[in-house]
Amino acid sequence: MCISKDAKVAVIMGSDSDLSVMKSCIKILKDFEIDCEVMVCSAHRTPDKASQFAKNAEANGFDVIIAAAGKAAHLPGVLAAYTPIPVIGVPIKSSTMDGLDSLLSIVQMPSGIPVATVAIDGADNAALLAIQILSVAYHELRHKMIDYKKSLQEKVEKKNAELQKKLLEI
Amino acid sequence: MCISKDAKVAVIMGSDSDLSVMKSCIKILKDFEIDCEVMVCSAHRTPDKASQFAKNAEANGFDVIIAAAGKAAHLPGVLAAYTPIPVIGVPIKSSTMDGLDSLLSIVQMPSGIPVATVAIDGADNAALLAIQILSVAYHELRHKMIDYKKSLQEKVEKKNAELQKKLLEI
Amino acid sequence: MCISKDAKVAVIMGSDSDLSVMKSCIKILKDFEIDCEVMVCSAHRTPDKASQFAKNAEANGFDVIIAAAGKAAHLPGVLAAYTPIPVIGVPIKSSTMDGLDSLLSIVQMPSGIPVATVAIDGADNAALLAIQILSVAYHELRHKMIDYKKSLQEKVEKKNAELQKKLLEI
Amino acid sequence: MCISKDAKVAVIMGSDSDLSVMKSCIKILKDFEIDCEVMVCSAHRTPDKASQFAKNAEANGFDVIIAAAGKAAHLPGVLAAYTPIPVIGVPIKSSTMDGLDSLLSIVQMPSGIPVATVAIDGADNAALLAIQILSVAYHELRHKMIDYKKSLQEKVEKKNAELQKKLLEI
Amino acid sequence: MCISKDAKVAVIMGSDSDLSVMKSCIKILKDFEIDCEVMVCSAHRTPDKASQFAKNAEANGFDVIIAAAGKAAHLPGVLAAYTPIPVIGVPIKSSTMDGLDSLLSIVQMPSGIPVATVAIDGADNAALLAIQILSVAYHELRHKMIDYKKSLQEKVEKKNAELQKKLLEI
Amino acid sequence: MCISKDAKVAVIMGSDSDLSVMKSCIKILKDFEIDCEVMVCSAHRTPDKASQFAKNAEANGFDVIIAAAGKAAHLPGVLAAYTPIPVIGVPIKSSTMDGLDSLLSIVQMPSGIPVATVAIDGADNAALLAIQILSVAYHELRHKMIDYKKSLQEKVEKKNAELQKKLLEI
Amino acid sequence: MCISKDAKVAVIMGSDSDLSVMKSCIKILKDFEIDCEVMVCSAHRTPDKASQFAKNAEANGFDVIIAAAGKAAHLPGVLAAYTPIPVIGVPIKSSTMDGLDSLLSIVQMPSGIPVATVAIDGADNAALLAIQILSVAYHELRHKMIDYKKSLQEKVEKKNAELQKKLLEI
Amino acid sequence: MCISKDAKVAVIMGSDSDLSVMKSCIKILKDFEIDCEVMVCSAHRTPDKASQFAKNAEANGFDVIIAAAGKAAHLPGVLAAYTPIPVIGVPIKSSTMDGLDSLLSIVQMPSGIPVATVAIDGADNAALLAIQILSVAYHELRHKMIDYKKSLQEKVEKKNAELQKKLLEI
Repeated sequence: MCISKDAKVAVIMGSDSDLSVMKSCIKILKDFEIDCEVMVCSAHRTPDKASQFAKNAEANGFDVIIAAAGKAAHLPGVLAAYTPIPVIGVPIKSSTMDGLDSLLSIVQMPSGIPVATVAIDGADNAALLAIQILSVAYHELRHKMIDYKKSLQEKVEKKNAELQKKLLEI
Repeated sequence: MCISKDAKVAVIMGSDSDLSVMKSCIKILKDFEIDCEVMVCSAHRTPDKASQFAKNAEANGFDVIIAAAGKAAHLPGVLAAYTPIPVIGVPIKSSTMDGLDSLLSIVQMPSGIPVATVAIDGADNAALLAIQILSVAYHELRHKMIDYKKSLQEKVEKKNAELQKKLLEI
Repeated sequence: MCISKDAKVAVIMGSDSDLSVMKSCIKILKDFEIDCEVMVCSAHRTPDKASQFAKNAEANGFDVIIAAAGKAAHLPGVLAAYTPIPVIGVPIKSSTMDGLDSLLSIVQMPSGIPVATVAIDGADNAALLAIQILSVAYHELRHKMIDYKKSLQEKVEKKNAELQKKLLEI
Repeated sequence: MCISKDAKVAVIMGSDSDLSVMKSCIKILKDFEIDCEVMVCSAHRTPDKASQFAKNAEANGFDVIIAAAGKAAHLPGVLAAYTPIPVIGVPIKSSTMDGLDSLLSIVQMPSGIPVATVAIDGADNAALLAIQILSVAYHELRHKMIDYKKSLQEKVEKKNAELQKKLLEI
Repeated sequence: MCISKDAKVAVIMGSDSDLSVMKSCIKILKDFEIDCEVMVCSAHRTPDKASQFAKNAEANGFDVIIAAAGKAAHLPGVLAAYTPIPVIGVPIKSSTMDGLDSLLSIVQMPSGIPVATVAIDGADNAALLAIQILSVAYHELRHKMIDYKKSLQEKVEKKNAELQKKLLEI
Repeated sequence: MCISKDAKVAVIMGSDSDLSVMKSCIKILKDFEIDCEVMVCSAHRTPDKASQFAKNAEANGFDVIIAAAGKAAHLPGVLAAYTPIPVIGVPIKSSTMDGLDSLLSIVQMPSGIPVATVAIDGADNAALLAIQILSVAYHELRHKMIDYKKSLQEKVEKKNAELQKKLLEI
Repeated sequence: MCISKDAKVAVIMGSDSDLSVMKSCIKILKDFEIDCEVMVCSAHRTPDKASQFAKNAEANGFDVIIAAAGKAAHLPGVLAAYTPIPVIGVPIKSSTMDGLDSLLSIVQMPSGIPVATVAIDGADNAALLAIQILSVAYHELRHKMIDYKKSLQEKVEKKNAELQKKLLEI
Repeated sequence: MCISKDAKVAVIMGSDSDLSVMKSCIKILKDFEIDCEVMVCSAHRTPDKASQFAKNAEANGFDVIIAAAGKAAHLPGVLAAYTPIPVIGVPIKSSTMDGLDSLLSIVQMPSGIPVATVAIDGADNAALLAIQILSVAYHELRHKMIDYKKSLQEKVEKKNAELQKKLLEI
């Protein structure tokens, strides 16, 4: 049976400035004890490195790739072109167009080469989706995910309790 | 070791009119010999059925859920709320807003509950993404996926050859 | 004859961060002396609580539900799926897409399950719409609403008078 | 106790060309046996008639106004300015801008004057929302609405059954 | 022959908060020595005042109306419905949708009732357009406008000269 | 006193294909007995002709210019740059972007050079706005405009009467 | 001195279905007697071929690359990543989003790797831009371009003459 | 053979406020030792200067024109109308519409008159595209461009190395 310490995820960012958004993605992967490799690698500035990485990703033991990019965000699609493993795309909001350019550049992939797209700046969900994908093979992750969902629920309940106090002041 | 005949995918459509788009998704899953269950189930008209389905999906042996919906497309997110297994969302273009409403309703999920979103009307890619996700556990699918990618490549080459002939007429 | 102290409105927020916007909604309901229950309850993080609340809303004496949510804002539609009472949706502007995602996710409901949508961050109008709806049964509220409209008019007149002074400085 | 045969709804269209969309709204109101008055009345071409209608709507026994308009769709907001009764707005898709102009012109009302907006071309939902609003006073309508929701559910189940047959051909 | 001291322009704002944008409009009208009346008057909060103003505008000697409003910006269209004199609309950018809602609500007027729309927050141009319109009757304004255009040209030339110095530092 | 037979309007189209939309503009000008000159003249293909026309427009007796163009619709702004007389811009919907490109290219003019913009494909309103502008000088046109508005009103009333018959069939 | 028969342009299409749009691009290049190579080559389905082509483009004597693609249109950017020669991008309108996805995916390139973007479906202009670029080296092309511009002008004049006749019928 | 010290580029800005964005464009041209002339020149405020400049650009030895403008950004298209040399357009983001107005006004040029459009605020890429265009004639620039691309690559590698250190702190 598969055990999750063998699971491996790559987190690729098109620019080092994406780290401020992607930090929480890496944090969640660590919290779930997923082995992950993080890299700045641009589809446009280091295209050979990007294609080489993707071509070898499966052989190098990666199960899932998370790729974050902004503007004309080609990185997730370019990686997906070179690998059979699932690629998750995170559209990063840049200084213009409120993230719509990144979103459409990532999600509107043509038939044949999917990219599993999450929300604009959706770093948390990229990590959680990767874990859900891994859990198809590594069932222990499913239990962790169920626990995580419970913790979300409890957080909402706690916030609701706090809210009731704040309401008295309105 | 996992074998792909044990893999199971659910394809849920918010409306039966989505079948015209989703046909090719089901076809690809069949071509890859993935066991799949297909259902019309609405987040708004049959909400109990939708939540029950999602709550039991893991126990019922489903590995991945594909959910297609249009307009204020809540189905993928609602299913994802109730299950730890990965949910793929297909935004369906309806008669207004050119699919933008469906896309944003599906992809912009809040932190905690991801939906793996593909292109508007991206039925093929939903199937292929499901297969890529399954291949994390069922490695034989990875080989089929590599073959599929080769077939895409050959198709492009064939179309290119045909193009050269058409060019003579311009 | 119905009396408005029997009227009851629920104000549900998808996240506690929505309170900063929704405060003025709660304030107006209080000013009109409408009994209201306020709650943080997420369609995605606490889906069972959300559906239970909606299923029992009528039996629990609620006349109208106001639901506020951002991004892929499913909360109003999900509540509407489970109850025959009117649901008012408030699209909350989040950090990307300028509220368009929330608006389309709430307003573009499919045939059969309406959500009465107000403007992005339109908390005041959600309260006023709830009161207008209640006034169909509780006629005394109609008089309060007419007074409220007069007060709006007077405020405009007062601002106009102030404006005339400011104009001298241009 | 209120009885629904006393309920009265106005359906106002900015242009007679809106009838093709609004037909189903009128049909649903008739099916629920709601007394309704239907009128072509333009905020721009017959502004006096529009304002007179709205000013007298309450006195004339109307409980709810449904107003449909396209492009720079001012009709619902203009009516709402003159009456304390709830106004439902239906954005009609015209030949340009895919209905976005109508939607924003109706839903983005400033604080003080709400319009309960439904989906672009959402004629059915305008009727159903009116009925939900009426049911706050006329409780028998609530039972009819619960029956209507059940019929929607059954329709989905029937379509699902039909789908299973179509699947055999894929 | 007409003389421009007889010309009269109304500047109507939907909200007193629009003054920060519209100040420069009023300033330009004063610089051109156009008699102008400025007022806060809302299509939704003071609809009777708005319609009365528009109905009497011609008789009261107004040649042109400038109307500024944000969000679902009905003011210019509502005024235009009641008067045969030209109405200029200024879409004001509010806190959401970057002014697109205001622009579409003003510019997309249906056939029969035009509003002469300028850019979002285009207060200067509203004044200049009013002056150009007045100049059809008051020819002396045309000369002032030609002078104004020359001054714009000179400003560009001056800025260009300054630019050449700044370039040395790059 | 000015008489309207001296009024003169230019209708400039960026492409001859715009005639199908602009026909109704020319028709209305003729119905109001306004002398008008119609021309195909492109800001990009015949720029010298366009600038020459605009430079001489005032001297040649034109009171108003109507300019229609699609896509990156520069024609109205380019003409406005060269003349002190008012320029009305008609954004023409082309095969992509649903007219939004034309609208923004025309309406978003920088401070100093206004273009009076009407709705996408708003040919009728361009003519009516021109007439309203002319009526500032030629008062007899104002009476015609008031009559025109009355005819619009009567048309609505007639359509309303016809509607009442159609309703019996629903 | 450079002579234009040495100039060479590549026209790359992401899909053979793009030919219907790109035909006119190839036609114009032929009319200007520019040697051109046309190919179907996908950034996602044949990524190695695409990168190989771009890497060798300069050595193989290409001066300019024209790349057309739709949806998440990565082809122009991917080619630009691998070559120092100028790349012209043509966004192709596909079945959803009216070409906005293609446009943003091509034009919003990050700093360092430009793509010279033309209008959605702007096949003619891609050819003309390529010729303008070539004319920097091959001056004889400049004369042809000046002639071409004159022919455009004459066409406008001819259409204008025809228009004058059509006007008599309005 | 052509030598790059003979190359000449014009950088035209519609407003002096564009300099803050365009500084980096000018800087890159200087770093590549390209002779460039920089000017503030408005299509609307100094139209004669703009057209004169474009008409004489070729004769004055310019190889490429870079034109930056915001809002209804006509400058690049207007210059392109008057010259056979390639024009690069830079859409400048202004205070409303997030740059979409500038982008569409520049990129959506009609057939016959292309503008090579780069990203919103894409000043760097405008310079680099100009250099790529020049390199068709001035081959030594191609080597500089190849070096520049290498430097981009090295910067990514350096940032990646720095990232690895930052990761330890997450």
